[in-house]
Amino acid sequence: MAVPDTMRVSVLRAPGELALERRPIPAFGPREVLVRVLSVGTCGSDTHYYRHGRIGRFVVRAPLVLGHEPAGEVVAVGAEVERVRPGQRVSLEPGVPCFTCPLCASGRYNLCPRMRFFATPPVDGAFAEYVVHHEAMAHPVPDTVSDDAAALLEPLSVAIWACRKAGVGPGSRVLVSGAGPVGLLAVQAARAFGAAEVAVTDLRWARLSLARDLGASRAVDMGADTGPKEVSGFAPDILIECSGSPEATAGGVLALGGGGRAVLVGMGGDTVALPLSHVQDNEITVTGVFRYANTWPTAIALASARTVDLDRLVTHHFGLADVEGALGAGAEDPTAVKVVVRPQA
Amino acid sequence: MAVPDTMRVSVLRAPGELALERRPIPAFGPREVLVRVLSVGTCGSDTHYYRHGRIGRFVVRAPLVLGHEPAGEVVAVGAEVERVRPGQRVSLEPGVPCFTCPLCASGRYNLCPRMRFFATPPVDGAFAEYVVHHEAMAHPVPDTVSDDAAALLEPLSVAIWACRKAGVGPGSRVLVSGAGPVGLLAVQAARAFGAAEVAVTDLRWARLSLARDLGASRAVDMGADTGPKEVSGFAPDILIECSGSPEATAGGVLALGGGGRAVLVGMGGDTVALPLSHVQDNEITVTGVFRYANTWPTAIALASARTVDLDRLVTHHFGLADVEGALGAGAEDPTAVKVVVRPQA
Amino acid sequence: MAVPDTMRVSVLRAPGELALERRPIPAFGPREVLVRVLSVGTCGSDTHYYRHGRIGRFVVRAPLVLGHEPAGEVVAVGAEVERVRPGQRVSLEPGVPCFTCPLCASGRYNLCPRMRFFATPPVDGAFAEYVVHHEAMAHPVPDTVSDDAAALLEPLSVAIWACRKAGVGPGSRVLVSGAGPVGLLAVQAARAFGAAEVAVTDLRWARLSLARDLGASRAVDMGADTGPKEVSGFAPDILIECSGSPEATAGGVLALGGGGRAVLVGMGGDTVALPLSHVQDNEITVTGVFRYANTWPTAIALASARTVDLDRLVTHHFGLADVEGALGAGAEDPTAVKVVVRPQA
Amino acid sequence: MAVPDTMRVSVLRAPGELALERRPIPAFGPREVLVRVLSVGTCGSDTHYYRHGRIGRFVVRAPLVLGHEPAGEVVAVGAEVERVRPGQRVSLEPGVPCFTCPLCASGRYNLCPRMRFFATPPVDGAFAEYVVHHEAMAHPVPDTVSDDAAALLEPLSVAIWACRKAGVGPGSRVLVSGAGPVGLLAVQAARAFGAAEVAVTDLRWARLSLARDLGASRAVDMGADTGPKEVSGFAPDILIECSGSPEATAGGVLALGGGGRAVLVGMGGDTVALPLSHVQDNEITVTGVFRYANTWPTAIALASARTVDLDRLVTHHFGLADVEGALGAGAEDPTAVKVVVRPQA
Repeated sequence: MAVPDTMRVSVLRAPGELALERRPIPAFGPREVLVRVLSVGTCGSDTHYYRHGRIGRFVVRAPLVLGHEPAGEVVAVGAEVERVRPGQRVSLEPGVPCFTCPLCASGRYNLCPRMRFFATPPVDGAFAEYVVHHEAMAHPVPDTVSDDAAALLEPLSVAIWACRKAGVGPGSRVLVSGAGPVGLLAVQAARAFGAAEVAVTDLRWARLSLARDLGASRAVDMGADTGPKEVSGFAPDILIECSGSPEATAGGVLALGGGGRAVLVGMGGDTVALPLSHVQDNEITVTGVFRYANTWPTAIALASARTVDLDRLVTHHFGLADVEGALGAGAEDPTAVKVVVRPQA
Repeated sequence: MAVPDTMRVSVLRAPGELALERRPIPAFGPREVLVRVLSVGTCGSDTHYYRHGRIGRFVVRAPLVLGHEPAGEVVAVGAEVERVRPGQRVSLEPGVPCFTCPLCASGRYNLCPRMRFFATPPVDGAFAEYVVHHEAMAHPVPDTVSDDAAALLEPLSVAIWACRKAGVGPGSRVLVSGAGPVGLLAVQAARAFGAAEVAVTDLRWARLSLARDLGASRAVDMGADTGPKEVSGFAPDILIECSGSPEATAGGVLALGGGGRAVLVGMGGDTVALPLSHVQDNEITVTGVFRYANTWPTAIALASARTVDLDRLVTHHFGLADVEGALGAGAEDPTAVKVVVRPQA
Repeated sequence: MAVPDTMRVSVLRAPGELALERRPIPAFGPREVLVRVLSVGTCGSDTHYYRHGRIGRFVVRAPLVLGHEPAGEVVAVGAEVERVRPGQRVSLEPGVPCFTCPLCASGRYNLCPRMRFFATPPVDGAFAEYVVHHEAMAHPVPDTVSDDAAALLEPLSVAIWACRKAGVGPGSRVLVSGAGPVGLLAVQAARAFGAAEVAVTDLRWARLSLARDLGASRAVDMGADTGPKEVSGFAPDILIECSGSPEATAGGVLALGGGGRAVLVGMGGDTVALPLSHVQDNEITVTGVFRYANTWPTAIALASARTVDLDRLVTHHFGLADVEGALGAGAEDPTAVKVVVRPQA
Repeated sequence: MAVPDTMRVSVLRAPGELALERRPIPAFGPREVLVRVLSVGTCGSDTHYYRHGRIGRFVVRAPLVLGHEPAGEVVAVGAEVERVRPGQRVSLEPGVPCFTCPLCASGRYNLCPRMRFFATPPVDGAFAEYVVHHEAMAHPVPDTVSDDAAALLEPLSVAIWACRKAGVGPGSRVLVSGAGPVGLLAVQAARAFGAAEVAVTDLRWARLSLARDLGASRAVDMGADTGPKEVSGFAPDILIECSGSPEATAGGVLALGGGGRAVLVGMGGDTVALPLSHVQDNEITVTGVFRYANTWPTAIALASARTVDLDRLVTHHFGLADVEGALGAGAEDPTAVKVVVRPQA
């Protein structure tokens, strides 16, 4: 496929101001690949940058391209590339670590202090017709995985990573608090890890209904109910907190018994009050996830076997000219679950 | 040794009211041993029960014998006892679990909901001339371990359990916050586990000095200093929190970097504000310890090899008639580290 | 249900000599339950005792009741029993450990040196109308689990234990060598643990075909093929060896790559030649399973959710009067997979 | 320090033929450092290449520089180097992996199929006045670590890696079979990991005596004795096999009880007979080590704190002109333990 000289890119010029620009096709190094982007999932962090221009310590100080869940087709490769070839469809793991620091060398590259991550200032993201990426983070996907599903391997990786940290296995009883996209993927991932029961809590009936369709054995409307302890007869040994709500976090931890594990995925503020004496008396382990490491092979296996249904989550598509619409739909449309941008449209 | 018919026992009759009583020597079952108590360590929880009549959900509703860190000599054994014999000196692991519930069967007997634990209402403790205990929890000690040291295997077990949970190993950089008896034992245990550096924080100069004598590589006076982040050049990967201070807990967690582990030993209140976004961004693991499991063999090995010096911690002795003095000294005498009651005196 | 005074029992009087006897209903202790046996799976070890009177160091020196995979209905309970009640159907975990030795206390009760195990001399087994068992090892099963399936939770436990030891998880590529009952259960268990691919090898076409029906993604006829390395395109990271064949063991280990894990389930002789330099160069871990620990809750979850199909394995039933026929069918009938004795028939 | 244009190098031209050559100082890339070599430990593999021209699948097909345990001083760095600077003394971890393959990304870079390792054909080693190396594998050492000790961090890493794989910790009872340099380091490392008892076996009285000086609690002359089972009263839970002897391997595994772990360090041939039924009945884990990963920080900590005494092992020094003498001494001189080449001499 012929590669043009320039491409369209959606650029965040200032909080609330997105514009379509034309830029040169980026150059690529010897270990890098040039990818024609086909699908990019949108995420709450994209919307947050769009509206507020920052997320915590990460501040947008110059025009930035958003989008960090891309899939596409390899159209050119650097001279030393060996793992992918032009024509392959790939899911792009959005962060490229330094590979050689002690954290990278010990398998925790997600914590690499030199990580360069799509759409995290000052690194441009993937709401663009083409992107360049390191071959090690360009994962070929089989034909059984759609373009959209290939994009959604990124949030699936978050769910897989959370399940790994939580030690979900056959027989586990898992409480997932929050039925947003990551919560819905956590439900499916927990099932794929063998969980015997997966309860999900949320305030939205439609989301709870979808969670049940996707494998949740219980769905609890927290607006109507008084909390996880009231999920009668269900004693979770694992909490995967996906809401970011301090109340859900504290309540979920309190629902755990001896040796329980809590993994915090949703961001709930710098400081949160936790029921520490319950944590201590029951030797509960509390931890969080920061992105993921070494999850794509598993994500591809689960998606290609349809153990996890990613396409089912996609409710809306937008073209590159309407990233604003995509981000707005994701944030405001109650029927939206996962919104995908198609840069070639 | 002839066993008398009755014995002296120190009984907590009401908050603040301890009395010496004479009771029959207790009967023992086929798997139980009768132990002539030689040394019993005192602990903050004894003082708390003495003063307030309760610790959280555990309420003293009837006269209670305090003391849960006993060592002594076996003087008689039940018909089916095989692991110990009369004449042996033993350190008594104070909790007897049900042995057969799922938590017991999976090696977490410390979380057994049917645990019977010395000096936890309604189970009597060891401030008595004799106690009866299950043979499985009566651990013979070699001659190289003194009576006092045999008693102090209990708090050492807390420290060992914390080091295990924290994954202390060769090269670890450990921050111990709080230089009370358990903190001082955590310093020594961390060294025994191979820690390369052990920093300790406290507000008391004498305790910090003792901590250095016992192996701490750094000692930081938190009254003079502004916090663990200020421990220049020291980046701990592990926190063992032994102060129970919410500030030390939050500050200690903030001092940890990527993949850090925090083990909370000190009790700091039902609910504590934790820096959760730091926990999440760095995938820090936070957990607590509730007593210990399977620690005595290791504790005996460390004590008999003098890798950990227990006798050094003992500053005061009291007889059974003056448990009140013992508890008071432990709480109020600034020169007291560990106070031991000798029931035969 | 009225319990009679006596019961029929199938007794191995000498190698090759089974006889039906009438014995008193056994007495039970305060923590024990009396169970009316409904289904008992037969196992190769039963046949081996029947034919040879011994298995390695275990020698039948007195009349012995065989059968160690029983399920039944509780008909009476001891005075202190709390976890089960009359009328409940239970699957009996066949081994009762001492519960209190260091191995038991650390969660490895399967290695308890004082284990008393059904049908392991001198402990009688379950080819009887009634058996007595410790309540902790009598696991209630829901109505969705048939009597036969409840019996087969025992071999399923072997498969679960092997998968746990092997660390099977989402994305794993597992090679199961040997498609006997345990191999077929290992295939299903590996799937339940999330394995992406499960290859199975055997010499019997019918077994391989059944393995595929039960979830194997590849089935390799080792008679027609030259070995696991020839399983084109399949690079297992885990071996679960269920054949006991030294060739399959060595070949399977050689098929593993860097960081591979081999779990040896089949018994292949006291001493076996292993490709140690391959093990060393690839840091492969080799271990074995001896029975299981803490597997019943998981086994019940998998069976009741039909994640694992146990009834499908049952090909033959025999009454208590024809245990000889049952053992013969299991060993010689090529259509037999799992043979069940029904003591009430 | 001025760097000359050329340097002296000891080259293996053919089996048994070493020659001193003069070569240009090698060029270095942007992430590489140029090191003036001060000490290089010699190893049995150097002698093996020297004598036989191959080790298993690794064949010397062109002139090769031997030596893979180097330490030296950084004299120049590439443009992008950040972790070391000229003037620093460094210990060189001899293997440079690809950093980006799945094994590297998951923390097992020692198994990287693209590893380039000093003195493993066709990669030249360090018997040279200068070498070039990747900065990530050049570990600065403090002044408290001598040049020789910095070189010996390599074999110490093997011992640390073995202890990590074996799970040595406080209270462990470790059997080290073989008191060669790695065995002697395994004794010291096991102590540093907290082992309560370390027994060592060998046929050489002098080595056993040295092992005792270095911390072994028992030393067994296998020539005089009949095997590890005869080490009266010693029941190891861990075997670190450093002799490569098939008898020691099998005997050591047989000495382990329930849940024991065996780590095979010595190379004992492609295929070795192992007591598999003992492995299975006791759920013993058997694995091997292939080099090491992420060990240098721990090695530096142990060496600088003198927890492990490396200088004590060095018995002989040779200059670059007499590498032949160095390799000969290491292999034949009964008083030799560790022989060091000093390329600047």
